[in-house]
Amino acid sequence: MGDRRRSWWGWGWEDEALTPEQATNLGAALATRPGFEGLQARRPAKLGDLDLPEPRLVAPGALAKLCSDATFDRASHTYGKSFRDTVRGFEGDLPHPPDLVAYPNDEADVASLLDWCASAGAAAVPYGGGSSVVGGVDGGGEWADGYAGVVSIDLTRLDRVLEIDTVSRAARIQGGALGPVLEEQLRPQGYTLRHFPQSFEFSTLGGWLATRSGGHYATVYTHIDDLTESIRTVTPSGVMESRRLPGSGAGPSPDRMVLGSEGTLGVITEAWMRIQDRPRFKSSAGVHFPTLSAAVAATRLVSQAALFPTNCRVLDPGEAMTSAGVSDGSALLVLGFESADHPVDPWMRRAAEICQDAGGTIPDGIRSSSTEGAAGAWRSSFLRAPYGRDAMIALGCIAETFETAVPWSGFDELHAAVTTAVEKALQEICGGGWVTCRFTHVYPDGPAPYFTVIAPSRPGRQLAQWAEIKAAAAQALIDAGGTITHHHAVGRDHRPWYDQQRPDLFATALRAAKAALDPAKTLNPGVVIDP
Amino acid sequence: MGDRRRSWWGWGWEDEALTPEQATNLGAALATRPGFEGLQARRPAKLGDLDLPEPRLVAPGALAKLCSDATFDRASHTYGKSFRDTVRGFEGDLPHPPDLVAYPNDEADVASLLDWCASAGAAAVPYGGGSSVVGGVDGGGEWADGYAGVVSIDLTRLDRVLEIDTVSRAARIQGGALGPVLEEQLRPQGYTLRHFPQSFEFSTLGGWLATRSGGHYATVYTHIDDLTESIRTVTPSGVMESRRLPGSGAGPSPDRMVLGSEGTLGVITEAWMRIQDRPRFKSSAGVHFPTLSAAVAATRLVSQAALFPTNCRVLDPGEAMTSAGVSDGSALLVLGFESADHPVDPWMRRAAEICQDAGGTIPDGIRSSSTEGAAGAWRSSFLRAPYGRDAMIALGCIAETFETAVPWSGFDELHAAVTTAVEKALQEICGGGWVTCRFTHVYPDGPAPYFTVIAPSRPGRQLAQWAEIKAAAAQALIDAGGTITHHHAVGRDHRPWYDQQRPDLFATALRAAKAALDPAKTLNPGVVIDP
Repeated sequence: MGDRRRSWWGWGWEDEALTPEQATNLGAALATRPGFEGLQARRPAKLGDLDLPEPRLVAPGALAKLCSDATFDRASHTYGKSFRDTVRGFEGDLPHPPDLVAYPNDEADVASLLDWCASAGAAAVPYGGGSSVVGGVDGGGEWADGYAGVVSIDLTRLDRVLEIDTVSRAARIQGGALGPVLEEQLRPQGYTLRHFPQSFEFSTLGGWLATRSGGHYATVYTHIDDLTESIRTVTPSGVMESRRLPGSGAGPSPDRMVLGSEGTLGVITEAWMRIQDRPRFKSSAGVHFPTLSAAVAATRLVSQAALFPTNCRVLDPGEAMTSAGVSDGSALLVLGFESADHPVDPWMRRAAEICQDAGGTIPDGIRSSSTEGAAGAWRSSFLRAPYGRDAMIALGCIAETFETAVPWSGFDELHAAVTTAVEKALQEICGGGWVTCRFTHVYPDGPAPYFTVIAPSRPGRQLAQWAEIKAAAAQALIDAGGTITHHHAVGRDHRPWYDQQRPDLFATALRAAKAALDPAKTLNPGVVIDP
Repeated sequence: MGDRRRSWWGWGWEDEALTPEQATNLGAALATRPGFEGLQARRPAKLGDLDLPEPRLVAPGALAKLCSDATFDRASHTYGKSFRDTVRGFEGDLPHPPDLVAYPNDEADVASLLDWCASAGAAAVPYGGGSSVVGGVDGGGEWADGYAGVVSIDLTRLDRVLEIDTVSRAARIQGGALGPVLEEQLRPQGYTLRHFPQSFEFSTLGGWLATRSGGHYATVYTHIDDLTESIRTVTPSGVMESRRLPGSGAGPSPDRMVLGSEGTLGVITEAWMRIQDRPRFKSSAGVHFPTLSAAVAATRLVSQAALFPTNCRVLDPGEAMTSAGVSDGSALLVLGFESADHPVDPWMRRAAEICQDAGGTIPDGIRSSSTEGAAGAWRSSFLRAPYGRDAMIALGCIAETFETAVPWSGFDELHAAVTTAVEKALQEICGGGWVTCRFTHVYPDGPAPYFTVIAPSRPGRQLAQWAEIKAAAAQALIDAGGTITHHHAVGRDHRPWYDQQRPDLFATALRAAKAALDPAKTLNPGVVIDP
């Protein structure tokens, strides 16, 4: 990666951010919309101008050389990458940076750091790629009152593929490996983990496991949960490692307790993951429907046909226009199949038939490569979207997403309730803006809808306005039977709604489990549960 | 079901048991094998001759009418249906029956029973169909020392499908519904849960959930875990119910803590389950291979091709002969595809091609119905197998199964180690007998091998001999990296090996969770974990 530097306040690489000129052009393109008139791109706070509070911790002995109190390290580990985080970073509003950022070189370093934190009364925050959008990796805050300080433990030096079992198609991978870093190590042997969340470039295997990452693909083996053979976790009480097994019915699954624990039970240092041959056969199609409802009805039938499409993304007319250039008001279903073993035409033909029987049309036909046409246009904008979000922040706008999952029978009501709640809030609070919806994943029993909100605001008002919109949206999701998060995790930001969603007695059990593994309450206090 | 009565000591319906004549014929058929000479079918103990200890508990007030201390009820709830259980029942060896068998009519009854047990210092044993083969539903034993008594809570009156969501294809089903009972209620609307473990007729939804049941089908959505949308559990601390969601990333999965808990955390009273349209298209084939190794190699390739066969059962030459009439020494791969939506020929053709490229032959061709040919012959014997096991017990033989799962790379070594250990034990202990192997499920990263042991013994020696054989087999499984159980659960019988397999810190966490939900240690003490 050479001399490239990650943005300390925004998404990704500093050199890939939109230039002020690009941001201004984006503002000009928005100017015809009510409330978006006269947008000006401001510039982010300068790192050199930050005045961070003095670190309250000094790492002892051998740990000192793993730890940094440099401004860049502390500033870049203060927040994740939610809209709220990025606005605060952009504004240079960093009252609670971590006291130290630790870069362990191996698992023994992780254990030593946890030991020291526990004995020093410090909180430890496991940090992978830092792409949390739910306040899951914050380096400080009111939650840290009562702690002697906060150490952000950045795992990205634990970045190796340690072993590949080519017969079983599984690989032992360290938890701190970023997406591209682990794929680079699998590629020479023809394999891929084939887990591509939008944060892929700037998130790690350990982070995916800790947050139950969703991946790019729409059905069947796509959640990181289902790609996991075993997990090795360093808890404050010692190492917990499950056995490598393709399946087991021996008691509750140990892995399923770690999956979704968001750094509250331990630090994931390694996992055996199911890998795959790289796909050779592809087929894709963009299916147009006159309405979102029609697209949803057809997509439900496809999802219940056990065809297991790789892509099965519904885009409402708004997203179809902005993301895939569909300008006639159609909703779009991006349908794709891939295989490393066999041509997928029969699968695609049947899925297309289901869609056509349900009123869909395929103006561009079925294509043998997924990188072209409407489907490809959508996909190519996928990884760069967060850079655009940062530009919207520079323009003083609101730009954020949220997601859920709900049974098919509840989707229409949920969609209406969320859209109504958000549009009402946008009108009252911002005087403009819009909310759009797509499906990122589908299951036989329901979809995972993903909403995008774009609204006019102005510097200094963005956070308070977004907080109101988000609260309205989140409560509508919960009231309509959805989950507060399908793949963004809980963190601290989702707690008010997660606490309504999860069974109280499950929280009781989980709190007891945490107390048994983390008796000093060292790990990520307040994330998912109160310790 | 009219006047039919369940066997109080053996499998299934009394009137479906092999007659003494049929058992004697089975004995004659075995007589050519070393050690099996001169087998005589004995008769089981008579219910009227049992002299059970007096019940130590009297249910108070309104609970009294839910409870029975009749000999039939107590005797039939003393054990599950393992070989060990069935031999003890056959011999009338029932020193520790439950004091009472309770038949709650609804969830409120379950809660009242748990309250009473906790306050009375009694242990409560959730009992579904009673098909446990791991000591998971025992009505008493040394583990109950220190308890005032044991109440077996039989859930089979909670047997209704309460609600069907036809849009989402999900149904809310009570935990005590036996397989045929719930299927009968789904069939009129064209649906099926499509979960068919071998115990299907005599096991319940709640039991499947509590034990992570494996189901008949070989790949993808077959485990009960993956068919579950939400679970409602009555714990001693109250009701815990998860939200109906097709997918969620909100913290660790509450359902996955209940799945595999084997009645130690609560009683499962209801669940929303993913149901399916009934299959209309089928294709099956019996693929012959010269050796087990060749069959395994081909099966691995099929399992890694993402074709998701419905059936993908490898039978070693011994099982191919006894279960499917393959007499030329071939190993057999029973391959099948089913769909409710589309013809499955392209899927089957590709799977067959993979097998043929790997040296397999398909002498009977591909058939469009799965109920004929070698595949059908195997399947028709599936549900009746446990009755044959009981006849073997009457003949004074040993007949039992055990199962595991292991990555593909470890299968050859595991198979050799287990076969060697069991054959050595059989030779030394029984002077004869054999062990055979099949795969019940396959995953991209490994198979679930299922072993059957048949051996000569004699009345009075069966249990001690089997205990030695089982210990040798179980230790070989664990030492070779397998799981002690893929779908039979842990119970009390598997504890010595489960305790070697599961991470110690996971046991610590699970014990803490149990203590939080079941502070009086009422539920199924000693199953899975020590309370």
